[in-house]
Amino acid sequence: MDGVDHLAPERSKAQFDVDDMKIVWAGSPHAFEVADRMSRLVASDPAFKKDHRPMLGRKELFKNTMRKAAYAWKRIIELRLTEEEASMLRSFVDEPAFTDLHWGMFIPAIKGQGTEEQQQQWLPLAQRMQIIGCYAQTELGHGSNVQGLETTATFDPNTDEFVIHSPTLTSSKWWPGGLGKIATHGAVYARLITDGQDYGVHGFIVQLRSLDDHLPLPGITIGDIGTKFGNGAYNTMDNGVLQFDHVRIPRNQMLMRVSQVTREGKYVQSTVPRQLVYGTMVYVRQTIVSDASIALSRAVCIATRYSCVRRQFGGKKGGLETQVLDYKTQQARLFPLLASAYAFRFVGEWLKWLYMDVMKRLQAGDFSTLPEAHACTAGLKSLTTSVTADGIEECRKLCGGHGYLCSSGLPELFAVYVPTCTYEGDNVVLMLQVARHLMKTIAKLGSGKRPVGTTAYMGRVELLMQYQSNVEKAEDWLKPNFVLEAFEARAARKSVNCAKNLAKFSNPEEGFLELSAELVEAAVAHCQLIVVSKFIEKLQQDIPGKGVKKQLEILCIVYALNLLNKYLGDFLSTGCINAKQASLASEQLRSLYSQLRPNAVALVDAFNYTDHYLGSVLGRYDGNVYPKLYEQAWKDPLNDSVVPDGFQEYVRPMLKQQLRNARL
Amino acid sequence: MDGVDHLAPERSKAQFDVDDMKIVWAGSPHAFEVADRMSRLVASDPAFKKDHRPMLGRKELFKNTMRKAAYAWKRIIELRLTEEEASMLRSFVDEPAFTDLHWGMFIPAIKGQGTEEQQQQWLPLAQRMQIIGCYAQTELGHGSNVQGLETTATFDPNTDEFVIHSPTLTSSKWWPGGLGKIATHGAVYARLITDGQDYGVHGFIVQLRSLDDHLPLPGITIGDIGTKFGNGAYNTMDNGVLQFDHVRIPRNQMLMRVSQVTREGKYVQSTVPRQLVYGTMVYVRQTIVSDASIALSRAVCIATRYSCVRRQFGGKKGGLETQVLDYKTQQARLFPLLASAYAFRFVGEWLKWLYMDVMKRLQAGDFSTLPEAHACTAGLKSLTTSVTADGIEECRKLCGGHGYLCSSGLPELFAVYVPTCTYEGDNVVLMLQVARHLMKTIAKLGSGKRPVGTTAYMGRVELLMQYQSNVEKAEDWLKPNFVLEAFEARAARKSVNCAKNLAKFSNPEEGFLELSAELVEAAVAHCQLIVVSKFIEKLQQDIPGKGVKKQLEILCIVYALNLLNKYLGDFLSTGCINAKQASLASEQLRSLYSQLRPNAVALVDAFNYTDHYLGSVLGRYDGNVYPKLYEQAWKDPLNDSVVPDGFQEYVRPMLKQQLRNARL
Ligand SMILES: Cc1cc2nc3c(=O)[nH]c(=O)nc-3n(C[C@H](O)[C@H](O)[C@H](O)COP(=O)(O)OP(=O)(O)OC[C@H]3O[C@@H](n4cnc5c(N)ncnc54)[C@H](O)[C@@H]3O)c2cc1C
Ligand SMILES: Cc1cc2nc3c(=O)[nH]c(=O)nc-3n(C[C@H](O)[C@H](O)[C@H](O)COP(=O)(O)OP(=O)(O)OC[C@H]3O[C@@H](n4cnc5c(N)ncnc54)[C@H](O)[C@@H]3O)c2cc1C
Ligand SMILES: [Ca+2]
Repeated sequence: MDGVDHLAPERSKAQFDVDDMKIVWAGSPHAFEVADRMSRLVASDPAFKKDHRPMLGRKELFKNTMRKAAYAWKRIIELRLTEEEASMLRSFVDEPAFTDLHWGMFIPAIKGQGTEEQQQQWLPLAQRMQIIGCYAQTELGHGSNVQGLETTATFDPNTDEFVIHSPTLTSSKWWPGGLGKIATHGAVYARLITDGQDYGVHGFIVQLRSLDDHLPLPGITIGDIGTKFGNGAYNTMDNGVLQFDHVRIPRNQMLMRVSQVTREGKYVQSTVPRQLVYGTMVYVRQTIVSDASIALSRAVCIATRYSCVRRQFGGKKGGLETQVLDYKTQQARLFPLLASAYAFRFVGEWLKWLYMDVMKRLQAGDFSTLPEAHACTAGLKSLTTSVTADGIEECRKLCGGHGYLCSSGLPELFAVYVPTCTYEGDNVVLMLQVARHLMKTIAKLGSGKRPVGTTAYMGRVELLMQYQSNVEKAEDWLKPNFVLEAFEARAARKSVNCAKNLAKFSNPEEGFLELSAELVEAAVAHCQLIVVSKFIEKLQQDIPGKGVKKQLEILCIVYALNLLNKYLGDFLSTGCINAKQASLASEQLRSLYSQLRPNAVALVDAFNYTDHYLGSVLGRYDGNVYPKLYEQAWKDPLNDSVVPDGFQEYVRPMLKQQLRNARL
Repeated sequence: MDGVDHLAPERSKAQFDVDDMKIVWAGSPHAFEVADRMSRLVASDPAFKKDHRPMLGRKELFKNTMRKAAYAWKRIIELRLTEEEASMLRSFVDEPAFTDLHWGMFIPAIKGQGTEEQQQQWLPLAQRMQIIGCYAQTELGHGSNVQGLETTATFDPNTDEFVIHSPTLTSSKWWPGGLGKIATHGAVYARLITDGQDYGVHGFIVQLRSLDDHLPLPGITIGDIGTKFGNGAYNTMDNGVLQFDHVRIPRNQMLMRVSQVTREGKYVQSTVPRQLVYGTMVYVRQTIVSDASIALSRAVCIATRYSCVRRQFGGKKGGLETQVLDYKTQQARLFPLLASAYAFRFVGEWLKWLYMDVMKRLQAGDFSTLPEAHACTAGLKSLTTSVTADGIEECRKLCGGHGYLCSSGLPELFAVYVPTCTYEGDNVVLMLQVARHLMKTIAKLGSGKRPVGTTAYMGRVELLMQYQSNVEKAEDWLKPNFVLEAFEARAARKSVNCAKNLAKFSNPEEGFLELSAELVEAAVAHCQLIVVSKFIEKLQQDIPGKGVKKQLEILCIVYALNLLNKYLGDFLSTGCINAKQASLASEQLRSLYSQLRPNAVALVDAFNYTDHYLGSVLGRYDGNVYPKLYEQAWKDPLNDSVVPDGFQEYVRPMLKQQLRNARL
């Protein structure tokens, strides 16, 4: 920073204590301290420079990622970082890499699906990075439908081996990150065939490349699947293609925690319950929700700061023009996203608790809450990632023309984020799962069994079907109960309407297919209710710090009322609220935007992001935007020479009317 | 194509004549013939290859664009193409280039703002490309607020020259396309100062680079502003930065059609009315609307074809799985976009007529329809580009994981398209202009003057305020009048509500600022009504071809009812329709989706895009997706070597536990 803080006037306007809010955002003083320390460690080390990333060609880019990954690992060892610190450090390096899949999918797969013995054999190697693993499930022809995978693993009792094979082009593994160029091993998913029978998809540990010369082992073809969306972005990852030509692995490389194949080729189930696998899914999706709040908050931070720097129109003669954040349209686009970032943060925090609760119960043999927890994490993954992807792009547009430059950081943030809507479950497919769970819950209501967890409100369905909001004046909408009831009533009615319409079909599966668009709407309403209710629950806790709780209360109502406004058709058509109450909600929302305005910059400062992590000239902490934009521009390779390479061959003949003889 | 048409079964299902639909889409048999011929010309010429674009570094990419631009111009001359053909050819080359601004902004600026004499001096040079021009308006500090530009053009009566100067960093020109590396001249916008007085922003023709060595002229600094969003995409354009240090140009290079500076330095207005300038804006924005229909239809074409190739879930044992286009959620996301593409096509066609009508009137001294035409093009530019940008990304998501690969064509289509929401008027700023026009229209209703053109329905405002839909059964929603009336009533009421709320403010400007978010909503409702009404008008024409009209009728109602569903809050809260009618609309929509399904592929075939133009492995005409995806992957630079460059230095020491001594 060059000393002057151009945003100081904004910061001095804040009506709450930013340092206390930083703790709330981080989750705890400890979490804050670790994140703060790790982010500064990365930001202050030139080895982690990243602002040139969008200008690098694919090979250079990838080489640079390998260097950073190795360097990060070196630092982790040198500094004897804890697991928590190491994972924080990696996330602040802010560059997708093969290591993500190694730590995030390969190791958890062994932990979750491997026997004790297998874990002892493989985990030490993996944890020291003597082998690097990927997670090879998706194929060219099958992603969402995992049960349709075509790769086969056929047991050969003569040699006590599995033969891994890709019988068709579409059975080629396609997408696994880290596979294309780096992984030495893979958790490979294939149809288990023994004794002529197909037992469906199971996991296997397969060595892919030689640990000597790194070449693919015999019978194995591997490559990178090509350039992906955006500059830099996910192109630092080597998503790969993989084909097997009758590759043999020892029998004990099948992941055998839940089911096994015996020496004789008999398929047997172990006593470990299958449901444990869902526990892992709950875990992975919970981290995605928490990452959504981070990605969205980064975009919001950039757009908020820049909207205070950017002035356009409205200046009195000679005086300063209006900061674009003072325009109500800008606020109406940006503040709901700010509120969503906080909302997703808190629901993510709660999901972490839920995961631990579920695991505790599983260990005690209690599977009762698992389906609900599974549906709820699936739905929240879908909801938060969709909103975040759209929200990042909206933040880019909020920055006008300059948002379109890579130096704004927003193009890369968007491009690297969007696949989150697709991987770990396509967002629409996930919402359909939630809808299925809701329909089951409703079907069971008559049975006297009370719905649990986030579906508990369904237990009051009869009351909720009668509900009519009692809001009489704009301020009533500030009361959490009015908000919560309206969201509960809307969600319940959307689900009940679907259930009623489903009942008209003689074939329920046909009905589900036919009504799936409406079912998705009901699932979305349910998930929005969860987010609203967890935000409200958070506010019932003791939250220290001057003015902190007040800001969070405003954000909570902004989150809810903006949704109410956006999905007004739902609320009105189901009769939960009336048109007058809707208009009072709009009025209240406008007033809340005005209350947020002076706190906006401080509310994004509370995310505690370094300029390195933000990676945006527009979002700089000090607001010194224009000189830095100018400086950055000159670094583009196209500015290496005044007259561009190619001008003499192509453009000069055009200007000189000599194209006829030009070699083009 | 390799011979087999994998989509033949889809094509044979169509219930209308595709060849006739192609004519409807193109606008006329002549337009079809030219587009068809030019697109084939480009597609069949290897010089226009573009599928490697996402893999090129910035310099290579730009060099390649220069080559293509020169080659295209060579072909245009060799083949003696007409202006219409040449412009078609350029658009099928499908690569943003400096020539776009030369033909699209620089030449029109001279035509629109230059005197007869200036036109005679400059146009022949420009039209032979002996000079290449850019349009240099936006600065680092000012885009939307053109009146705030800081560059000065001070008249010096001693030498009869203007002195062009950049007094601040923020006054640097920033964004002009073609400026960074190529343009020899610019239409430069600067504050005209003469005799010590500032007359506001005017246009000047300024030579920027030497026609000998292409170096910037003395006192001029130029560079490229850096990498922009996406791979390939708009990075083929050299958007530039430009600073003047007291650069002198002859007085007669001020664009003097509307106002002049005399030899003595007196500022005088000519008899040519200022309003002519708005005519040009109507023209440019009309082309943007028509381009929106093209961009959206390309994305829809890709997603539709791929959704028929892609099968996931639902297969009976051994049988084929379900085509994902058969899922209702897929249809509910995709078919409204298909309908929007057609809707935008027709409203674009109508805008072309409107532009000619306005120009005819202007020439006859009739300015009465200009404000309405201006508001309506501004609003339609905003509406269609926002929907198209979001729609392209939705189409990408509809393709699942594979949509994220550059070889799907969708990432580049999105990245190159999105700035359309920002340039030629930020979409929110434009909608605020529409809202202003609507409020003026309402204010004048009392005066007895009938509102004209697209605001004519406001003349029936009293009736529309009483309106309650008479829809009683789902089929009623098929009647254009029911639809039109509901949209008119909703738009009128949204505007009237705003006007009523505005009246509560003592200072109307303050009121406008405070209520701007609601005003934008009213403007959107008005613009959606325009699109719906123009689609309905189109259907009142004679449309030949077996089954063609029927399909268009379905698309029209799908377009309208999907909006009704999405903006249901508007329709219900204003009381135009009730909840029962809303649910009948959903029901009708579902039934229309089923009717569209067998025609989907034929409806996108009607766009008549070549595989070259589509630039998508997923959208291939023959549906031969998987082998081609596989083939394309291997072309990535990362696959040049089996072991990636950098592996030995960085990853090997990691695997071998030798990081301590590695140089990273
Ligand atoms: C960046 C990235 C990284 C990845 N990393 C890995 C990895 O490391 N390892 C790995 O194994 N995989 C990986 N994947 C693959 C990823 O898991 C799949 O892409 C994902 O599961 C989606 O599946 P799909 O691509 O088959 O989508 P599809 O299922 O083909 O989706 C296409 C369309 O069909 C719709 N659809 C599909 N089924 C239904 C249904 N039943 N009802 C309604 N609509 C339906 C979808 O909503 C979507 O609109 C990665 C993908 C990406 C993009
Ligand atoms: C790819 C590209 C190509 C371009 N090519 C050219 C070119 O060839 N020549 C040229 O001269 N220019 C060019 N431009 C510049 C372009 O015209 C401007 O970016 C555009 O006019 C938007 O202005 P801005 O960037 O100042 O946005 P800003 O006005 O800074 O917008 C920032 C935010 O403020 C909001 N805002 C601004 N004013 C108001 C208001 N009054 N009320 C409410 N909200 C407001 C906007 O909605 C937006 O959210 C190009 C831009 C791009 C991205
Ligand atoms: Ca025919």
